[in-house]
Amino acid sequence: MNEKIKWLREKLNTLNLDGMIVSNPVNIKYLTGINAEGILLITRKENIYITDARYMEYINSVLTIEDEIIPYDVKDIDPIDYENMFLFCSNVGFEENYVTYAKYKEYKQKYKINNLVETDGLIEMQRMIKAPDEINYIQKACKITDACFVHICNYIKIGMTEKEIAYEIEHYFKTHGAEGVSFDTIVASGRNSSMPHAIPTDKKIEAGDPITIDFGCKYNGYCSDMTRTIFVKYVPEGIKPIYNLVLKNQELTLDAIQENANARILTMMVESDFKVNGYTLDHSLGHGVGLDIHEYPFVGRKDLLLKENMVLTDEPGIYLPGKFGVRIEDTVLVNKSTCTRLTESSKDYIIVCND
Amino acid sequence: MNEKIKWLREKLNTLNLDGMIVSNPVNIKYLTGINAEGILLITRKENIYITDARYMEYINSVLTIEDEIIPYDVKDIDPIDYENMFLFCSNVGFEENYVTYAKYKEYKQKYKINNLVETDGLIEMQRMIKAPDEINYIQKACKITDACFVHICNYIKIGMTEKEIAYEIEHYFKTHGAEGVSFDTIVASGRNSSMPHAIPTDKKIEAGDPITIDFGCKYNGYCSDMTRTIFVKYVPEGIKPIYNLVLKNQELTLDAIQENANARILTMMVESDFKVNGYTLDHSLGHGVGLDIHEYPFVGRKDLLLKENMVLTDEPGIYLPGKFGVRIEDTVLVNKSTCTRLTESSKDYIIVCND
Repeated sequence: MNEKIKWLREKLNTLNLDGMIVSNPVNIKYLTGINAEGILLITRKENIYITDARYMEYINSVLTIEDEIIPYDVKDIDPIDYENMFLFCSNVGFEENYVTYAKYKEYKQKYKINNLVETDGLIEMQRMIKAPDEINYIQKACKITDACFVHICNYIKIGMTEKEIAYEIEHYFKTHGAEGVSFDTIVASGRNSSMPHAIPTDKKIEAGDPITIDFGCKYNGYCSDMTRTIFVKYVPEGIKPIYNLVLKNQELTLDAIQENANARILTMMVESDFKVNGYTLDHSLGHGVGLDIHEYPFVGRKDLLLKENMVLTDEPGIYLPGKFGVRIEDTVLVNKSTCTRLTESSKDYIIVCND
Repeated sequence: MNEKIKWLREKLNTLNLDGMIVSNPVNIKYLTGINAEGILLITRKENIYITDARYMEYINSVLTIEDEIIPYDVKDIDPIDYENMFLFCSNVGFEENYVTYAKYKEYKQKYKINNLVETDGLIEMQRMIKAPDEINYIQKACKITDACFVHICNYIKIGMTEKEIAYEIEHYFKTHGAEGVSFDTIVASGRNSSMPHAIPTDKKIEAGDPITIDFGCKYNGYCSDMTRTIFVKYVPEGIKPIYNLVLKNQELTLDAIQENANARILTMMVESDFKVNGYTLDHSLGHGVGLDIHEYPFVGRKDLLLKENMVLTDEPGIYLPGKFGVRIEDTVLVNKSTCTRLTESSKDYIIVCND
């Protein structure tokens, strides 16, 4: 049996659960490598993956005997088979944060389960600590992102639209080894940069614009995430103190990230320094990165001790409505007594359109 | 108050519901025009949209006084405010097919609602019948899709990969007035065309290949959907009978689509003709198209009477594993005693790479 399913079975045991219905496709990909539409059942005796005819050929090509996962085509399953799957199981776990209320009722009825038990992010919590192959994939996604940043800085010309730049980033990813973007690329120039979640518009790039670019790609399902605020032709004097303050706090945070650092304390540190200078931290300082672009741990106002081999972002930002904004973000790997930046692009003032 | 919310309030009344929590962002976009992250509450006295600081400026720019929707920033709401929202409401509807089990419990607790009632696709059902502005948006998406098809037929060259073609389609959409694709483009050539849901690969286009292209774009949130199987250099003789059979049934279906036509009968008609000829209909004959690419009505083996101003696809296909496949699909508008094709591209044998 594969190591991740072995871990899950042991965990279910300690929680006094006789089995689990895993519905979230990202958790299924994590546990099995399978990237399809289906459902994974951890029963007393077996691991069962139920899918449909479209995926059976693919599933059989992904799974080996060692996986000990039995694939079923949904059309070959009778109502009585469903009832037998969790026979004599009194407590069966399910993913209450993924499963809809309608599906919850369907599961209860279909599998005749007395007690469907909330598992409270059990698998998501385990996903926080990355295995070596997972770190390797994230690292590859980050390397492609760094290379894309060099490319895009040379690519941007005055008069181009934000949309054109976002489009080129996505094209670069798809033609340089990534599966595509890990989230919708943000390219926010001039006043638009004051919106943390701006959607690229038809606004044209002008001299004196700051441009906040928040982007990332996927490699074998794993995400990267990086933001830089760069400048067109020159750095407006008024932005410099804010850029420097954001950068200082981004690097202070980097210095502080290590095993057992408390996410809440990191957040408070940045909040205080922003406040002293007359600004506020309007969004969380960071989030975990893996198969999902936003996953545990969330670096915010809740106590949470970082652990070795977590991968998360460090992304303070300051936004002045109607004026501009600055955000600087790296994806980083937590080590025992330090952290490793996985995105390594420069954070000095970067000026584009110099030719 | 806007017409769609007025409709919803009347509907809730007839269902003996004192209010509703609308969580599905597509339903919120339908009812309000708002395209953001938040939740719409239809309470006894008011319509409330709860969002966060990131979206407040945008929300205020979308809503007018006539909408009678009050936007709230989530951070300004106290626990007691939540409890007051549905005060004296005994039955409040929610979307059991969208809301997770965890959210369901949170709603019950937060709003102190005794009886959260399943609404069984209430809003989705209403979305089946398109208003004139919605038809207009879908029509625009279809026009862009038709133009893209002309472009792509000229663009395809022997030696190009499926991925390159899919990429060009997406580029075309983004640079010709669409917001982007309405779903992941399918470009399946040669043997790959035998998989109804093929993902574009690095396989190169060769003479004699059939290429099934299934694609669509979004215009103001509304989708188009079209499929053509085209041919490289020549039409292989062996494919012709199958192409002709698929086309015949696609057009027979078009002829039959009108108000009060039964989706099940349409499906049976195509199934029978395929069977008589030694083939099977492996997927449903069609589906509704609107803000979602797949929405009600589903044209399958269930009884369902089509209604005027429904928009749906007509997409029979035949797939011979290891050999090839043919699918022909249009997006169509149901009229009183006929239907209108919204995608109008040719369905004759289309041969590319002729130069």
